[in-house]
Amino acid sequence: MRTGVWLVGARGSVAVTSIVGASALRAGLTEPIGCVAEHPSIDNRALPGFSDLVFGGYDIATTSLVKRAEALAAAGVVPGRLVAALHSELSTADEDVKVLPHGGTQGQAAAAMVADLQAFRERHGLERVVVVNVASTEPAAVPHPAHASLLQLRQALEQADAVLPASSLAAFAALNAGCAYVDFTPSTGARLPALHELALEKQVPYAGHDGKTGETLLKSVLAPMFAMRQLRVRSWSGLNLLGGGDGATLADPAANAAKSASKQRVLGETLGYVPDGHTRIEYVPDIGDFKTAWDLVTFAGFLGTSMRMEFTWHGCDSALAAPLVLDLARIVAAAHRNGRVGPLPELAFFFKDPLGDVDHGLAAQFEALAAFTASLT
Amino acid sequence: MRTGVWLVGARGSVAVTSIVGASALRAGLTEPIGCVAEHPSIDNRALPGFSDLVFGGYDIATTSLVKRAEALAAAGVVPGRLVAALHSELSTADEDVKVLPHGGTQGQAAAAMVADLQAFRERHGLERVVVVNVASTEPAAVPHPAHASLLQLRQALEQADAVLPASSLAAFAALNAGCAYVDFTPSTGARLPALHELALEKQVPYAGHDGKTGETLLKSVLAPMFAMRQLRVRSWSGLNLLGGGDGATLADPAANAAKSASKQRVLGETLGYVPDGHTRIEYVPDIGDFKTAWDLVTFAGFLGTSMRMEFTWHGCDSALAAPLVLDLARIVAAAHRNGRVGPLPELAFFFKDPLGDVDHGLAAQFEALAAFTASLT
Amino acid sequence: MRTGVWLVGARGSVAVTSIVGASALRAGLTEPIGCVAEHPSIDNRALPGFSDLVFGGYDIATTSLVKRAEALAAAGVVPGRLVAALHSELSTADEDVKVLPHGGTQGQAAAAMVADLQAFRERHGLERVVVVNVASTEPAAVPHPAHASLLQLRQALEQADAVLPASSLAAFAALNAGCAYVDFTPSTGARLPALHELALEKQVPYAGHDGKTGETLLKSVLAPMFAMRQLRVRSWSGLNLLGGGDGATLADPAANAAKSASKQRVLGETLGYVPDGHTRIEYVPDIGDFKTAWDLVTFAGFLGTSMRMEFTWHGCDSALAAPLVLDLARIVAAAHRNGRVGPLPELAFFFKDPLGDVDHGLAAQFEALAAFTASLT
Amino acid sequence: MRTGVWLVGARGSVAVTSIVGASALRAGLTEPIGCVAEHPSIDNRALPGFSDLVFGGYDIATTSLVKRAEALAAAGVVPGRLVAALHSELSTADEDVKVLPHGGTQGQAAAAMVADLQAFRERHGLERVVVVNVASTEPAAVPHPAHASLLQLRQALEQADAVLPASSLAAFAALNAGCAYVDFTPSTGARLPALHELALEKQVPYAGHDGKTGETLLKSVLAPMFAMRQLRVRSWSGLNLLGGGDGATLADPAANAAKSASKQRVLGETLGYVPDGHTRIEYVPDIGDFKTAWDLVTFAGFLGTSMRMEFTWHGCDSALAAPLVLDLARIVAAAHRNGRVGPLPELAFFFKDPLGDVDHGLAAQFEALAAFTASLT
Ligand SMILES: NC(=O)c1ccc[n+]([C@@H]2O[C@H](COP(=O)([O-])OP(=O)(O)OC[C@H]3O[C@@H](n4cnc5c(N)ncnc54)[C@H](O)[C@@H]3O)[C@@H](O)[C@H]2O)c1
Ligand SMILES: NC(=O)c1ccc[n+]([C@@H]2O[C@H](COP(=O)([O-])OP(=O)(O)OC[C@H]3O[C@@H](n4cnc5c(N)ncnc54)[C@H](O)[C@@H]3O)[C@@H](O)[C@H]2O)c1
Ligand SMILES: NC(=O)c1ccc[n+]([C@@H]2O[C@H](COP(=O)([O-])OP(=O)(O)OC[C@H]3O[C@@H](n4cnc5c(N)ncnc54)[C@H](O)[C@@H]3O)[C@@H](O)[C@H]2O)c1
Ligand SMILES: NC(=O)c1ccc[n+]([C@@H]2O[C@H](COP(=O)([O-])OP(=O)(O)OC[C@H]3O[C@@H](n4cnc5c(N)ncnc54)[C@H](O)[C@@H]3O)[C@@H](O)[C@H]2O)c1
Ligand code: NA
Ligand code: NA
Repeated sequence: MRTGVWLVGARGSVAVTSIVGASALRAGLTEPIGCVAEHPSIDNRALPGFSDLVFGGYDIATTSLVKRAEALAAAGVVPGRLVAALHSELSTADEDVKVLPHGGTQGQAAAAMVADLQAFRERHGLERVVVVNVASTEPAAVPHPAHASLLQLRQALEQADAVLPASSLAAFAALNAGCAYVDFTPSTGARLPALHELALEKQVPYAGHDGKTGETLLKSVLAPMFAMRQLRVRSWSGLNLLGGGDGATLADPAANAAKSASKQRVLGETLGYVPDGHTRIEYVPDIGDFKTAWDLVTFAGFLGTSMRMEFTWHGCDSALAAPLVLDLARIVAAAHRNGRVGPLPELAFFFKDPLGDVDHGLAAQFEALAAFTASLT
Repeated sequence: MRTGVWLVGARGSVAVTSIVGASALRAGLTEPIGCVAEHPSIDNRALPGFSDLVFGGYDIATTSLVKRAEALAAAGVVPGRLVAALHSELSTADEDVKVLPHGGTQGQAAAAMVADLQAFRERHGLERVVVVNVASTEPAAVPHPAHASLLQLRQALEQADAVLPASSLAAFAALNAGCAYVDFTPSTGARLPALHELALEKQVPYAGHDGKTGETLLKSVLAPMFAMRQLRVRSWSGLNLLGGGDGATLADPAANAAKSASKQRVLGETLGYVPDGHTRIEYVPDIGDFKTAWDLVTFAGFLGTSMRMEFTWHGCDSALAAPLVLDLARIVAAAHRNGRVGPLPELAFFFKDPLGDVDHGLAAQFEALAAFTASLT
Repeated sequence: MRTGVWLVGARGSVAVTSIVGASALRAGLTEPIGCVAEHPSIDNRALPGFSDLVFGGYDIATTSLVKRAEALAAAGVVPGRLVAALHSELSTADEDVKVLPHGGTQGQAAAAMVADLQAFRERHGLERVVVVNVASTEPAAVPHPAHASLLQLRQALEQADAVLPASSLAAFAALNAGCAYVDFTPSTGARLPALHELALEKQVPYAGHDGKTGETLLKSVLAPMFAMRQLRVRSWSGLNLLGGGDGATLADPAANAAKSASKQRVLGETLGYVPDGHTRIEYVPDIGDFKTAWDLVTFAGFLGTSMRMEFTWHGCDSALAAPLVLDLARIVAAAHRNGRVGPLPELAFFFKDPLGDVDHGLAAQFEALAAFTASLT
Repeated sequence: MRTGVWLVGARGSVAVTSIVGASALRAGLTEPIGCVAEHPSIDNRALPGFSDLVFGGYDIATTSLVKRAEALAAAGVVPGRLVAALHSELSTADEDVKVLPHGGTQGQAAAAMVADLQAFRERHGLERVVVVNVASTEPAAVPHPAHASLLQLRQALEQADAVLPASSLAAFAALNAGCAYVDFTPSTGARLPALHELALEKQVPYAGHDGKTGETLLKSVLAPMFAMRQLRVRSWSGLNLLGGGDGATLADPAANAAKSASKQRVLGETLGYVPDGHTRIEYVPDIGDFKTAWDLVTFAGFLGTSMRMEFTWHGCDSALAAPLVLDLARIVAAAHRNGRVGPLPELAFFFKDPLGDVDHGLAAQFEALAAFTASLT
């Protein structure tokens, strides 16, 4: 089953690491470390294989994929030997990365995107295409009445003023083109009533939001541990130091707020109460692509005795995110083929801020994922 | 259902914290923080309540429970106000703490213990008694042929030479007296074929080994996280700094070895391979009853990229252990009443080195525990 | 040499810990841990002894010193046994703690303070009085033209509108009363040209600002280490989590900014350049009086190789600050007697944001301090 | 002043990083980060420049310098671009790296070394040669009566049995050849009465022991901080995790013991008492050339209040050590020219376990170093 993966933000770190990695896996140059769909407990027989994936996408930047991959190699994110070996694959993929359509009304831009997606599908003889948003995090979207209904939205898109944030416009185009949509970022994406309507109309699934790769991943196992043990978490404070492109964007307080909020949600939902403390994101250019997160948890044990734990996580965000992007593309494509429509809460395992009213503990999410993939044919 | 809790090591930190805590709970002076049997997802209707518990036990030390409790209050382990308020309850419990029988053959000592247990049961009109080993960790036991069969063991116990370590002798006595036995320490306890035979003969259950309260608790959620995410753990190294009575014992390399081994087992079983690195225990008197454990985990992500996490856990061991001792006494008593016989692998949630071939992930263990308690009537 | 110590903020944590401690030292109930003037390399023969100190001061709160001391004991800041033993000393000191004069013009308030200071001096037959500001940190002061000259300031103080922040008004009163003034906080205090003029006119010394007790103390030895080794610090980021009264005040972004700025100053001055990164202060009530600070330093070694260190400091702020308050009172009193006038840059050892153009390395500051105390007679 | 640097262990990580770095500095391809002799406060006018240095040495391994440098580049210790650019310089240096003489009596081996050193000096027209030991750490040496006197030693070296550890034999040869000797390792080296006699006889200086690059460097600023502040350190525990060649050697308990002891010495000497706790070294292959050290310090403040700090140091040992090797070669060469003879305690700044009865605080050591270099002409 040849499957297209259309990356919005295709020249970013996560996207390029995903493309390099898929190519390396296809060429047998690396192992699928970090690829959840390759876990022994996950039945992946219904999923497209790594060699079934064809990449394309949008970006607003124009640096070539090879250049971006070399920069990632210099930063220690991907091995230089892989980039050297995969030069021609990357150049080929580059031909399918387009400049994001702009100008005219948002409706016109969306129509151009639909055309691009159809051309991509035909050019490569793809059975289906999954659109994955890995573009820079947007500021929180401005509410607009047309977000509430598909009819109104369609009308508003024909006006001169922008009504949708970029992530939602891409989702609108994806769904219109009959493509499943995954939001790996905290941006709005498909999370609007009008777009939900559209997904149902077009009979396609969507998934999100915000890939769970660092501090929140840890919270999703540590908070359940405190909960299972009936220990009372009194405060949970964190600081995330990040460089890289994503760090620069998140230094913008508006984007930062969205991300920080989705990072604390797991605590309230897992513990049943919200402890003191905040999670901060700070841009420190020298940190580069390796994020450092520090968290301090204070808690009470038997008879109220005070205790504490702290952890430091030093992770390469793109190397954590990229295999999940591949997992999501493969699983969502199979879900689409299996006739799944609308939000996919079974994929909560992958997200900081999952769709639906789901368990926030990682082990429960893994079980739900395993059951889901086992149900696909 | 009035239930006896006979603590071997009854004047130690864990035991005294358990007794103070149960008394405080009974008197409504504290909340059951850290008591797993009080978790909303655990059905505890079949378990004895805190006010059904009556404490007694053995020790080789003779300091009064009140003195020990005051020392724990001074060290910040239990609140001073509780010790002051529970003075008379502690003095009453003191009457049921006996000096460990010794002298003569081991068979004679065991007989004295059986008599003590029966007297305790009768004196307080107890429906049943659970013996819990919270004595100092023993050096690894010397193997002996008589460990392999109950018949041979009974004969050997009549000889002058000691054949069982103290923990196993206490288990032998407990089972003979028809009492369930729980080993909260890494000592041998009931883990001998001969004692397994005896448990079956006497139709009593047993559980163990080694309460999971700190670093291993964290490992039991973090190792599954790495496993579920297909991240490859390359090394896991740890240092445990502890003062207190337990620390002094574990400074003995022999005891230390037993404990360190049980601490690493979770890694191999959860990850499916054993990463580089060791776990060390070190006695640092000034650390007192609050243990500090530091762990460094190095791991590979997608394309082999190296990452790391470290954590520091600063926990009060006795305040973490005591509520589990209460949980175990309550659950094992109910299991006994329900006719459960032999090892209880469903209680793996509580132990570093659980009996049976069980899942080492904490979430799976919690589910098994919930199913088990729900099955009791 | 009987010496008065007039604490502005006398019912705060630092002040009460200082009073409890000085009383305990006088009574021989404790050792002078943390008291720099008792260091073998510091010649303290010219300084008043602990038994020469008499305490008084101002606050806006009215809780008794005994109550405050008991709260500090419950929080683990001071030992309960000392508070119990020093009950009557604390009650006596309470009589000399007044409500901060207010109402009328600032000039009138200052006059009332001068009268209070004189009465205190006479009541206890004190040779001299040192005023130490340990009140809550103020927001950054609003600039005013009258800050630039003593003449203008005296006129402005007679007007209805406030011209000075509280810390500077207290400094004005202190200097007018012929008392030396120490600012242990980051507030403005004596740092105004007009007040400098006044200090010269009245022939009294002053010292400040902002006691160096935690993260900045560490920076003042670690930054010189990197500098001496020619290692290039690329980023230095920190998060300070604090509860307690001071934490609540600093949660106010205005106060926070002043404090954070004084915390980073040591880096620029010691390294010769300002690395990336920020220092944050966050109020987390559950943290209480024990502050936790975490810092991450990334640096380059030979050939540009990237390295990192991180530290966590878990200190009891008041127990770190109080002995320095005693040191400062003793040393500044002796400096005053020795005819020292104006700012005392030799006391940089004690401060985050020292007066004068001084070395920010702790070792150099210690040497300067030792030379200074040795020069006093 | 053309100066030879004869490295014992010339194919090891520290040696190769030193050679790559000196070549890169000479070629203007890098900055002297980490080079203390380039500090603005150090007068280096009397020292040989980087382009005056010529490298040679001994090893027991035979892998080429280029291969070793490439391995270091792959491990992230040195930049790959430098190794590529310096290919021919490294090949040239390779010609001066000899296999350590062996066979025959130790006296014969020493004579062969003297001949090698003289040939090296003549071949390159060197004014003088400094021998620097950067070979693998040896097990603690076996005491021998001949260590006590030069006369006896000379006789014993003619016997069949080995009397000196390898590091001391190299020191013997170096001194005999009129070369200054620096021990960068904890091995015995020149630290024997007989070799001290020889240094005086030959009128050459020597320096050591054990380069101070990580945890001990931090201790040398943190311990003085606690001391200056009169804070009472109660325990100081540490764990050093290291991979790399040095790690493998130190996994040997005998070598480990020597190193651990020299690491704790700074505490006793700086604090005036020895706190609880130990420092451990552990070999973890996956850690590679980047060492991770974790230390926990517990201490008491005013009134005995307990506090703690912990730090994690993640340093590249070779990148920290190599610039110091260059510093030492340059400074010791100049000292030799200035007629300095015997031990050089003024170089304590560089060593964990310095010669002589010196201050262990880093700031004082830096001052001593600055005074020393300023005295050279
Ligand atoms: N890496 C992780 O661990 C992780 C985890 C969760 C979420 N995310 C999210 O993934 C996204 C990508 O992260 P990254 O590290 O690759 O960031 P990046 O800055 O390297 O890449 C973002 C790319 O998006 C492009 N872009 C910006 N606006 C666009 C638009 N409107 N349309 C198309 N392209 C646009 C940029 O030019 C850039 O190439 C971010 O939103 C981040 O928050 C990442
Ligand atoms: N606290 C925890 O978190 C935790 C977790 C897992 C296991 N454990 C285990 O629990 C046990 C108790 O820990 P603790 O901190 O209370 O130690 P402790 O030293 O305070 O108490 C041990 C008590 O056992 C007594 N004792 C020694 N030998 C005995 C014997 N043969 N028979 C009867 N009593 C004997 C001692 O006199 C002492 O009173 C240890 O084996 C420890 O390893 C504790
Ligand atoms: N504790 C440390 O390590 C440390 C270090 C450096 C600086 N400081 C500074 O010391 C000061 C005191 O800290 P703390 O922890 O004792 O705080 P705290 O909140 O416990 O005490 C401050 C006291 O000042 C009083 N106060 C407020 N405004 C006043 C005014 N205008 N006049 C007189 N009293 C007033 C308050 O009522 C309170 O009793 C703070 O400014 C803090 O930033 C403390
Ligand atoms: N890197 C640091 O930060 C640091 C700090 C202090 C001390 N040191 C010491 O420096 C030494 C070198 O460290 P490294 O990391 O380069 O180790 P390494 O293992 O990479 O190199 C040691 C070299 O010495 C060679 N060798 C072994 N025995 C020899 C002998 N008898 N004669 C000549 N060569 C011999 C080995 O073949 C190897 O090439 C070690 O003793 C280490 O303890 C290093
Ligand atoms: Na840490
Ligand atoms: Na830490």
